[in-house]
Amino acid sequence: MESTELTRNYSRILLDLEEVPKHYVNILPHLAEPLAPPINPETGDPVSPEMLMAIFAVECVKQEMSPEKLVPIPEEVREAYMKYGRPTPLQRAVGLEAALNTPARIYYKREDSSPTGSHKLNTALSQAYYAKKEGVIRYATETGAGQWGSAVALACAHFGLEAMVYMVRVSYEQKAYRGVLMRAYGAEIVPSPSDRTEFGKKVNTEYPGHPGTLGIAISEALEDTLSRGDTKYTIGSVLNHVLLHQSVIGQEAIVQLEKADETPDTIIGCVGGGSNFAGISYPFMADPRFETTEFVGVEPTACPSMTEGEFRYDFGDTAGITPKVKMHTLGKDFTPPEIHAGGLRYHGVAPTVSALINEGRIRPVAYEQIPVLESAMVFARAEGVIPAPETAHAVKAAIGAALEAKKTGTEKVILFNFSGHGHFDMGAYAALMEGALVPEGEMAMAKNGQPLPQTT
Amino acid sequence: MESTELTRNYSRILLDLEEVPKHYVNILPHLAEPLAPPINPETGDPVSPEMLMAIFAVECVKQEMSPEKLVPIPEEVREAYMKYGRPTPLQRAVGLEAALNTPARIYYKREDSSPTGSHKLNTALSQAYYAKKEGVIRYATETGAGQWGSAVALACAHFGLEAMVYMVRVSYEQKAYRGVLMRAYGAEIVPSPSDRTEFGKKVNTEYPGHPGTLGIAISEALEDTLSRGDTKYTIGSVLNHVLLHQSVIGQEAIVQLEKADETPDTIIGCVGGGSNFAGISYPFMADPRFETTEFVGVEPTACPSMTEGEFRYDFGDTAGITPKVKMHTLGKDFTPPEIHAGGLRYHGVAPTVSALINEGRIRPVAYEQIPVLESAMVFARAEGVIPAPETAHAVKAAIGAALEAKKTGTEKVILFNFSGHGHFDMGAYAALMEGALVPEGEMAMAKNGQPLPQTT
Repeated sequence: MESTELTRNYSRILLDLEEVPKHYVNILPHLAEPLAPPINPETGDPVSPEMLMAIFAVECVKQEMSPEKLVPIPEEVREAYMKYGRPTPLQRAVGLEAALNTPARIYYKREDSSPTGSHKLNTALSQAYYAKKEGVIRYATETGAGQWGSAVALACAHFGLEAMVYMVRVSYEQKAYRGVLMRAYGAEIVPSPSDRTEFGKKVNTEYPGHPGTLGIAISEALEDTLSRGDTKYTIGSVLNHVLLHQSVIGQEAIVQLEKADETPDTIIGCVGGGSNFAGISYPFMADPRFETTEFVGVEPTACPSMTEGEFRYDFGDTAGITPKVKMHTLGKDFTPPEIHAGGLRYHGVAPTVSALINEGRIRPVAYEQIPVLESAMVFARAEGVIPAPETAHAVKAAIGAALEAKKTGTEKVILFNFSGHGHFDMGAYAALMEGALVPEGEMAMAKNGQPLPQTT
Repeated sequence: MESTELTRNYSRILLDLEEVPKHYVNILPHLAEPLAPPINPETGDPVSPEMLMAIFAVECVKQEMSPEKLVPIPEEVREAYMKYGRPTPLQRAVGLEAALNTPARIYYKREDSSPTGSHKLNTALSQAYYAKKEGVIRYATETGAGQWGSAVALACAHFGLEAMVYMVRVSYEQKAYRGVLMRAYGAEIVPSPSDRTEFGKKVNTEYPGHPGTLGIAISEALEDTLSRGDTKYTIGSVLNHVLLHQSVIGQEAIVQLEKADETPDTIIGCVGGGSNFAGISYPFMADPRFETTEFVGVEPTACPSMTEGEFRYDFGDTAGITPKVKMHTLGKDFTPPEIHAGGLRYHGVAPTVSALINEGRIRPVAYEQIPVLESAMVFARAEGVIPAPETAHAVKAAIGAALEAKKTGTEKVILFNFSGHGHFDMGAYAALMEGALVPEGEMAMAKNGQPLPQTT
């Protein structure tokens, strides 16, 4: 118990630069059953690696299907991680613990300390490195709230690639400064649905003023990619190789908690496609020392793919360009209400997260926007850091777990991924404080009147 | 030279939490001549400590006049520093060096890593601690770009004080999300000139739509303070005790450069009131090992107090409520154009900075807004971090020094204070990229037509 007293006084656990992980941790060999493969929607057969290599960097496709437990991190990528803030601090939430008067000890992993403000750079750098090495000139991608687009813009600037970003229109308008940041890094960016692709034009014609979805923006980025010879597509979540790259988060956290002489009882992350959640969770899941640890994934009730989606093969995008993957999905045409957590507005969820939900290893929960942002305000006053609206979902779950521990009087150890800061999302907090946010029920009513894009 | 090769590969120099300094370094005993005292404007006599104690926390007034070389940092303040990110990293600008192809080695101190985004929390925490200990209930203050107001809001939340912030109107509008952040921390905030004070009402009546200045906002915060019994005033720059608190920056940098086996040739900071510049510079100036180091203070040509101001006694505020201090000043009624570097829109500069300019120890330079922000864009692409418009002034000077070193082929070591990030200032970069910024000449023309507030 002495170590607990010690950490009570010291609120951040830092690692040396040399402690940036040297491998990614692959969850695939740890699944109870082999993952259902992506299939060609026309034939129903598993897609060939060659088909995927037309879209993604070759090395990423290899990693997508790798059976290896550990995948080496290239030294150039490790150095880029160091330059942009890795290893990130693990912080003890001493202020929040005091505010809640809980016996729980709460730790949060500071992925907000990246210059683009979130964990997204972890995979953007890796993907940009592989693409550059393979002779790719240009990356196309989509972004929701803009965390991913910013990361791609910086990663492309770092490794010398051009970047083209399709940003979901509602977020493009809500978070205009994200677009400015991407342009400052040298990226080109348009609101989606755009007039740069056939699919974007079609949606704009049929549904003028459509707010956009991640599914539509993915379709546009893919169409852009396939219509040119110099471009590949980079994705910020859902796929195995993306979640693999995020495993640096959890690996660092394991070392940091060891230094604090702590074992986590509960690990929490917010879930859109699943990448930050997987990043903090999978290295613990892959390590038998943490067999009894509970893993909680948090999504918005406005886009409840984990808690209400069907488990079936579905397209990753709205136009139906991608292979189909087996996942919990609300259907590719689902248009979520315009919540501020733009990064969680995705109709599906990563196949590996889906499989681990089915195995009972991940417990999914869903929260509404207003209480989520209220929790984030409690956190901001106690810890000083303002969470991104996505991250605020994890904050709410952590506060809930800490209050539960208070009720039962247990010294629970809670770890959550502080996936990003809210500096570009202050409109969400302004709306909250002005009472301008509507509860989910009313949102849904407003949106149900709007037709969804029909793409078949 | 081996150590140079080593640091070339490692871009951040971190310190342990325990290495947060235990003392502040006081520049007063290192000045060539005793600093001219603040005077009572009516009598011309030096003001008494008692008069200052009606405005400021007692301990701050004592520090204002302290002859001690070192002033102890209270343990509660040290712990707060640790919680909010100290020691901050010292980063080698490997990306920028490569982009400039310079033999210079450039280091920047990451004061942006504070949760409020700048160095301002260093003194806000200290001042809030002393006030709370002395039984103060509420702090009033002014803010320009909002970095200071955010720091006061968080420091007050940390130590349990109420916070009232008068924010210069033009910045309140340009950087609206800064206000949201302050409110999220629990502060009250109004645009200045406001209708909450007699002076604010007077300015609003005589000059409707006045954009505000730091001088006017200071007057409002002081009037607020003196009209109540529960409130003291906290200031974010100019005065000795504020600059004293910022000395944690330079002390850490000395240790960090030692670890990199480097001696700085040039140290650079932007200058509004002078606090971040003093923070990085004064500990080096107080240390005889750095006798040959050059110190460069950078201000905007739009508000050139150091390079064009007179050295004389002047008020710190516009209403003429404060004691007069001897400093380089443009006159208390000077209304600078609406540049985005709101934190540099102050008519004077710290008395100690003024004295050190006169001693020839500090070399002041002034730059125009557009080339300053263009330098910041070069930095953002090379390093990933987007500077605050204030900080961009130091960035431009560092780039200039590095290019000069390239011309002469010298391995110069350049250190600058990265005083804050630009996440809440993206409007400045949007305006730059849209070509919407006007050069200083045109600004001055537009503004010269506008009458200045007459306060006597």
